[in-house]
Amino acid sequence: MTDHYELYYWPSIQGRGEFIRLAFEDAGVAYVDVARQPVADGGGIPAIQRALRGELGGLPPFAPPIVRGGGVVVSQTAAILQWLAPRIGLAPHTEEDRLAAHQLQLSIADVVSEAHDVHHPISTSLYYKDQRTEATRAAGYFIDDRIPKWLGYFERVLVASPGEQLVGDTLSYVDLSLFQLVEGLTYAFPRAMARLAPSIPCVLALRDRVHARPRIAAYLASPRRLAFNEDGIFRHYDELDLQA
Amino acid sequence: MTDHYELYYWPSIQGRGEFIRLAFEDAGVAYVDVARQPVADGGGIPAIQRALRGELGGLPPFAPPIVRGGGVVVSQTAAILQWLAPRIGLAPHTEEDRLAAHQLQLSIADVVSEAHDVHHPISTSLYYKDQRTEATRAAGYFIDDRIPKWLGYFERVLVASPGEQLVGDTLSYVDLSLFQLVEGLTYAFPRAMARLAPSIPCVLALRDRVHARPRIAAYLASPRRLAFNEDGIFRHYDELDLQA
Repeated sequence: MTDHYELYYWPSIQGRGEFIRLAFEDAGVAYVDVARQPVADGGGIPAIQRALRGELGGLPPFAPPIVRGGGVVVSQTAAILQWLAPRIGLAPHTEEDRLAAHQLQLSIADVVSEAHDVHHPISTSLYYKDQRTEATRAAGYFIDDRIPKWLGYFERVLVASPGEQLVGDTLSYVDLSLFQLVEGLTYAFPRAMARLAPSIPCVLALRDRVHARPRIAAYLASPRRLAFNEDGIFRHYDELDLQA
Repeated sequence: MTDHYELYYWPSIQGRGEFIRLAFEDAGVAYVDVARQPVADGGGIPAIQRALRGELGGLPPFAPPIVRGGGVVVSQTAAILQWLAPRIGLAPHTEEDRLAAHQLQLSIADVVSEAHDVHHPISTSLYYKDQRTEATRAAGYFIDDRIPKWLGYFERVLVASPGEQLVGDTLSYVDLSLFQLVEGLTYAFPRAMARLAPSIPCVLALRDRVHARPRIAAYLASPRRLAFNEDGIFRHYDELDLQA
């Protein structure tokens, strides 16, 4: 008997939930994407609302993604992955490498938040259109300073790694997350990423290797993979990208 | 023989390093605050630069705080505390409670980043004075929407907790971190926090209990506790607080 896993995440965006979906998909582990099931079957947004009210038990979560499985309820993306990965064969083998993977996942979480804040620099309470002027200003610094600093850091980690992945001698969940980060930044800032490409060859090679993994390739080609869109974390607003 | 612990963090601010300092101090565990030692003795900013170049071994850190001890080097505040707490007697007792504490610590990390971004909404590459207009706009939403939402969440967790602390039946590192969060927000936004006080009695009672713990009280009264200042994460700019 295997564990039954449920993911609670917004049904119309990749968002932070996508880091969890990618882990389940690559592991070939069945999971229910609860909010993408019909409301009549206990799905939809009401399912997330129940989870946020703490009705799944355990610590009340602050926000999705939330995973239930093995009698446990976990929220916070990096905590979910740290807990989940050993159970589905996606964790590094040694304790030291697991600690390293978690640190890298937390750094990926930091970049993800920064990428979100570029289009919402003033407040998540406002629409993008109401903070577009500030967003345009923020984007220039994000493109010139932060993307190169962050992806340059992951490039350095890959160069120093003994294998082709970020940590240890086999692919782990944090490699899937770096793939997702690069895909998201490339969707949001295609011209900026094209300019940066020559300086991050190992990051891009890892992205390509993850993309080619059979289960990931099948997932990306399936209707389960939601398209990037302008409700998610990585948004393409042409005026925020590097100007040609 | 006990482990020898070194903390690498900016020597002139509380910042994210303070969450680590508070854990060491409350546990009564000796640690070297390396960058606060003289440069001639291997301290100062050059010590942080060496750590960031990866010269301590292990995964290259992205940013301080960094802790070395027990043959391991760890960065990312929440990862450090998760690793450190069981070694110094500040972790909850059960695996389930440890998982809950880590999720809460990650949520505290999220608020801390939001509090920082209020005074740096456009970029960390710019000074506050160069993004003051945007910061003033951001602060209003942070005060009206985000501080109540976050501290209301921790209030709810405390109300639901069987004991007087966030998790389990004894104080853990995450209670110390919530203390620091409340202290920081109160320094930065005294009028906003005074307005909010009636709705977060459990959070404030926990803050008071942590403050009264003998080793914490001794630490706060010592020169080891740096004062809040306008180079750190929690900054008091009167124009950003609730206007009287």
